[in-house]
Amino acid sequence: MRTPTRTGLDHTHDPAVRCCVPGADGHPDFPIQNLPLGVFSLADGAKRAGVAIGDHVLDLPAAQAAGLLTGEAARAVAAAESGDLNGLLALGAGPRRALRDQLFALLRAESPDCERVPPLLHAASSCTLHLPARIGDYTDFFVGIHHATQTGRQLRPDQPLLPNYKHVPVGYHGRASSIRPSGVPVRRPHGQAKPPHRDAPVFGPSRRLDYELELGVWIGPGNELGAPVAVGEAAGQVAGFCLLNDWSARDIQGWEYQPLGPFLAKSFATTISPWIVTPEALAPFRIPQAQRPEGDPAPLPYLLDEADQAGGALDLALEILLATSASREAGLSPHRVARSNARHMYWTVAQMIAHHTSGGCNLRPGDLLGTGTLSGPDPESCGSLLETTQGGKAPIRLGCGEERRFLEDGDEVILTVRGVREGFVPIGFGECRAEVLPAT
Amino acid sequence: MRTPTRTGLDHTHDPAVRCCVPGADGHPDFPIQNLPLGVFSLADGAKRAGVAIGDHVLDLPAAQAAGLLTGEAARAVAAAESGDLNGLLALGAGPRRALRDQLFALLRAESPDCERVPPLLHAASSCTLHLPARIGDYTDFFVGIHHATQTGRQLRPDQPLLPNYKHVPVGYHGRASSIRPSGVPVRRPHGQAKPPHRDAPVFGPSRRLDYELELGVWIGPGNELGAPVAVGEAAGQVAGFCLLNDWSARDIQGWEYQPLGPFLAKSFATTISPWIVTPEALAPFRIPQAQRPEGDPAPLPYLLDEADQAGGALDLALEILLATSASREAGLSPHRVARSNARHMYWTVAQMIAHHTSGGCNLRPGDLLGTGTLSGPDPESCGSLLETTQGGKAPIRLGCGEERRFLEDGDEVILTVRGVREGFVPIGFGECRAEVLPAT
Repeated sequence: MRTPTRTGLDHTHDPAVRCCVPGADGHPDFPIQNLPLGVFSLADGAKRAGVAIGDHVLDLPAAQAAGLLTGEAARAVAAAESGDLNGLLALGAGPRRALRDQLFALLRAESPDCERVPPLLHAASSCTLHLPARIGDYTDFFVGIHHATQTGRQLRPDQPLLPNYKHVPVGYHGRASSIRPSGVPVRRPHGQAKPPHRDAPVFGPSRRLDYELELGVWIGPGNELGAPVAVGEAAGQVAGFCLLNDWSARDIQGWEYQPLGPFLAKSFATTISPWIVTPEALAPFRIPQAQRPEGDPAPLPYLLDEADQAGGALDLALEILLATSASREAGLSPHRVARSNARHMYWTVAQMIAHHTSGGCNLRPGDLLGTGTLSGPDPESCGSLLETTQGGKAPIRLGCGEERRFLEDGDEVILTVRGVREGFVPIGFGECRAEVLPAT
Repeated sequence: MRTPTRTGLDHTHDPAVRCCVPGADGHPDFPIQNLPLGVFSLADGAKRAGVAIGDHVLDLPAAQAAGLLTGEAARAVAAAESGDLNGLLALGAGPRRALRDQLFALLRAESPDCERVPPLLHAASSCTLHLPARIGDYTDFFVGIHHATQTGRQLRPDQPLLPNYKHVPVGYHGRASSIRPSGVPVRRPHGQAKPPHRDAPVFGPSRRLDYELELGVWIGPGNELGAPVAVGEAAGQVAGFCLLNDWSARDIQGWEYQPLGPFLAKSFATTISPWIVTPEALAPFRIPQAQRPEGDPAPLPYLLDEADQAGGALDLALEILLATSASREAGLSPHRVARSNARHMYWTVAQMIAHHTSGGCNLRPGDLLGTGTLSGPDPESCGSLLETTQGGKAPIRLGCGEERRFLEDGDEVILTVRGVREGFVPIGFGECRAEVLPAT
């Protein structure tokens, strides 16, 4: 294993720094070392840019109005005045880092401006969180190699991975209109499916509703049509990360997907965690891309960059929790269905971006990329029920004596992520959570 | 054959009406009976809503400012003030029809306001035409059954159509960011391909660049997430039509598309004609959906509506023209590569919309649907070179002694469409044209 390249580490990762906001120190997701960006509203419904700090949301326009932000940081907040972060993301790393630096200075316990912070804070429980940006295009990749292998094996036991998998960061266009922030329930979709024992398809509510555990990647400056982003420059396109649940109706998918790929099986809903966790906040959790196993082809030159190989992967612990109607009634905690890690990506985010733009396709600020399902290699680390239950053949046991092959109405799926590394303060992304409502 | 249902015909289709704008009567595309909507700019670059009339563009905000539009029509133009038509499309049929009615009254030869029209006109040659709307999501269907059959036969001679084709209006999500209006050149993309004689893929400029002849469908009001549009209501979602060239790199497509469908093979460029030709203008060209051949399954109930079957198809003549560097130098007219018709759709536009939303997926005003390639059944009516040249095996002859298997640099592809029906004035959409630039 190569030594991790700790690029981008600075004083904002110092674990000794305390925060002047009560409850931020030791917060599982949002200590002062995180400072993710989002969009929230209060009772009046007006959307404003904010930063999560402990159990509070710091109001960025209010901080701006109070004269607490200057220069590039002030420019970043001004760019977010329209109630979404597209303009801020478009500015790239410089203003984003300046904002992080100034907020870090403002919020540390010994800050001379500490007494000016409380008026800028709203209790997170009083805030409605929105999608942080207008998503122009959403692309979903397939870079979780264990997911590709495990689902491929169900169709092709002798050749789980298709011949292109280790050459191409396979992806497809997803539906942008139906992406919703954590907390918005998901309606079980109707659709066409052809049960194996029937001659013709039937139309009705999906019987094989599933989740998919993914990371989302927010695009920053973007590129012009016809101007590819080199893999060595691709990190500069990343504005941040979120959790992403790529809800999937397996029965609809199995019938519709040939020859043009998934469509309605996915487009009824995608849930994301609403905070944009910046590349700066994630610097401590950078690791080298895993060495390819002996015999795997080397990436083509347009996908290969030394710095990306040395530090372009992420060590982030992922979890899937499931609460059911019965478990909630019984007062039980959500059941942990799987644990995985973002390191199970066969391609780095930079490789995804370089590939996506290699033919000239343009990315725009606020575009969203999904990684694809980030399963680990064993049954306890599967990122979808399709894998965990082997296509519904092997139900999993939950608490309360329940079992699941696929999701039932009332089930709530909760994805979490956590960066943990010795010598650094752990951070999370907040939850990506949604409940399944019955079909209408 | 059922009798065409001439729904929506009114005085604005009267062929006896003449226009006060010189050159509009007898114009191949834009007589007074068409009145398509678009967005243009002049030297100052400011985007404005306009209507094509003959070789002119009528400035809608100027007509509004002159007090020539009232009520719902004025509301429609006010909704387009931001420089795109999304707000106007969102209003649906009522304001769009009111605008058509008032423009028709204003522009007819005997209009009392005729002398107030010239100040509202710009020569089309002095206007830059833009995408008429911000496209939130772009979906491409596959409803041209001859295209599906002819391309399927190259892969599966015994079973050209997959089992789902006659049950599912198959579609996939396309890339919205790279859609450009007619006239913007298309850069030949680089990409991965695996030539049959090689063991591993290579990266380089596509060698099998192709066009696809499609119609585009502009979405009007849209639907809420989780609220499907019934097939009988789907016509109300259609704000208009355009031509669409779904540029395709066949070598990239063949290597990348399994298992998630086309991605970079298509996402480098899509060209559309810039005018939104309304359903009102197309009313004369409505025909019954072709009877399904004996033995084909009936559409599932959620896809079946009597009125849609009776008048939901379109009789529109389509052409593909090709100009090459050599043909332009020789002063030759573009070579006609194919003639087809929009009637070769196995599913109607209403069926596409009902299917798209059947699982709850939401459409938004300004979303764009492509029909898929509208080939006819014979070699002279193929909508792609993949079909015409049988995958490059049978080159076609052009003028100047040239031949083509796939597109070469400098080739310009021109799509046209024309509605012709006895007793009505023919209309067109304007051109959908773009030249292939060499790879960088």
